[in-house]
Amino acid sequence: MSTPTIYSTQIRVRYSETDQMGVVYHANYLNWFEVGRTEFFRQAGFRYRDLEKKGILLPVAEANVSFKQPALYDDLVDIRTWIADITPVRLTYAYEVYRVADEQLLVFGRTMHVFTNAALKPIRLSRLEPEIYAWLEAQSSTQNRHDEGSE
Amino acid sequence: MSTPTIYSTQIRVRYSETDQMGVVYHANYLNWFEVGRTEFFRQAGFRYRDLEKKGILLPVAEANVSFKQPALYDDLVDIRTWIADITPVRLTYAYEVYRVADEQLLVFGRTMHVFTNAALKPIRLSRLEPEIYAWLEAQSSTQNRHDEGSE
Amino acid sequence: MSTPTIYSTQIRVRYSETDQMGVVYHANYLNWFEVGRTEFFRQAGFRYRDLEKKGILLPVAEANVSFKQPALYDDLVDIRTWIADITPVRLTYAYEVYRVADEQLLVFGRTMHVFTNAALKPIRLSRLEPEIYAWLEAQSSTQNRHDEGSE
Amino acid sequence: MSTPTIYSTQIRVRYSETDQMGVVYHANYLNWFEVGRTEFFRQAGFRYRDLEKKGILLPVAEANVSFKQPALYDDLVDIRTWIADITPVRLTYAYEVYRVADEQLLVFGRTMHVFTNAALKPIRLSRLEPEIYAWLEAQSSTQNRHDEGSE
Repeated sequence: MSTPTIYSTQIRVRYSETDQMGVVYHANYLNWFEVGRTEFFRQAGFRYRDLEKKGILLPVAEANVSFKQPALYDDLVDIRTWIADITPVRLTYAYEVYRVADEQLLVFGRTMHVFTNAALKPIRLSRLEPEIYAWLEAQSSTQNRHDEGSE
Repeated sequence: MSTPTIYSTQIRVRYSETDQMGVVYHANYLNWFEVGRTEFFRQAGFRYRDLEKKGILLPVAEANVSFKQPALYDDLVDIRTWIADITPVRLTYAYEVYRVADEQLLVFGRTMHVFTNAALKPIRLSRLEPEIYAWLEAQSSTQNRHDEGSE
Repeated sequence: MSTPTIYSTQIRVRYSETDQMGVVYHANYLNWFEVGRTEFFRQAGFRYRDLEKKGILLPVAEANVSFKQPALYDDLVDIRTWIADITPVRLTYAYEVYRVADEQLLVFGRTMHVFTNAALKPIRLSRLEPEIYAWLEAQSSTQNRHDEGSE
Repeated sequence: MSTPTIYSTQIRVRYSETDQMGVVYHANYLNWFEVGRTEFFRQAGFRYRDLEKKGILLPVAEANVSFKQPALYDDLVDIRTWIADITPVRLTYAYEVYRVADEQLLVFGRTMHVFTNAALKPIRLSRLEPEIYAWLEAQSSTQNRHDEGSE
């Protein structure tokens, strides 16, 4: 069985991201997921900023995060990002965040996005930008699973 | 049937909370949920800062958020917070965020917290602070549902 | 001698605003200054969001902040905001942040803003919006100092 | 005349750092300055996190920032950091932030820090940690200027 393409990017934890518990404040992991999405696009040969210039936005409709171990100031962390699901109207990313030093899984989660125009009205990406849609689908396991079914 | 006590607090959306989509950046709603928890404690006659001084922390273990409509800069929003579930080792809050001007539901979600000591090791709140635990339980619908069952 | 009109607004320190030193992370005071500017406009009978809808922006060109005492999580703080200087092309705000509980001055500073259009190109507010300019001038001590001169 | 050692580090602008003007929200540059300080220490062979573990903190006492051109989402920016001044009780960093693509200077500024213990009480670094103090002084132009005076 085939699997989605996983993209990886590393960032260093900032002091501003800590809170008085001495660990990274939980909301910052959503910022890191966004870094993961940006680098997902770039590493796959595309820039999310160019998608926005075409008037296509991907606002977040749902987010689910599990916090296993806290990241600490100055930790180098690895954000792994892949497409968990895609349909003509929505895209779901999955993420895992690891601390590089000990390969500990810190956080994992998903964000579900809808394709919208600049006025935040839903659109069908497959109709407006069929090539981009096909490319995103190819990054996911969706098409692969379909292929399996036809065997 | 009885329901949990819902606490409400209002905040004004800050410019710093917007992003280049022209709406509130999604991670900020988790900050607002935290404001909701702080005011939940205060309005119920207790301060979360005092709980931390006793060496008891409530780090977030899971967060689930649904984004229905975006909040905008300068909107007055109402954060409604209640306890959805409580056990001796964990506490789950639920939230709804409304725009005050049009009573539109913008965002809802849940955060699950574990009770820990200052070293972030899990504790049983019911054993360490039975009075606080009883008070939290009374704020939730858990006990009430139990009562129902015995009728 | 006459003085500028000082507007005051109170906010509660959020957990997300603390860092691992156990105090408010310094960059957040700039966010609070922005809250002060927003409330300055509102209390004076005008909304900054309406100024932006007219296509007039006030990006920050300079910021100077002195940190005297740290604010703590859950502190109620009072942000005092006034116009320190205004010319047809720029506006300088001054701020003082006090902890309400002990009236301790925590932070003070200034931000200098230029008037721009939506493309961030400088404009002369006195020409484009003479009434708003006159109103801002009246909030500052500038006009008052002129009056003094005529006595 | 000799000059301080300048350390450079590059970061990618995050979506969460933008605001509804479509550019980076100004307070975020202070976060970037902090990234510059962290990398200053690391590149010079020392970790700021280790300094904190010794109970020595460098809270910010003053910050001065000039915003020349806005950074945009997805820009790669170069943060240059050096010591502008050091005394036994305080340390002043200077920064310049450039956009890598066009080598445009975006922002420059300074932050002045006091050496404190973990309770945020001022200390003399030269007395407590003479080796670290000597190292920091060597990174700055201070000692060099003293050398000049003896010529």
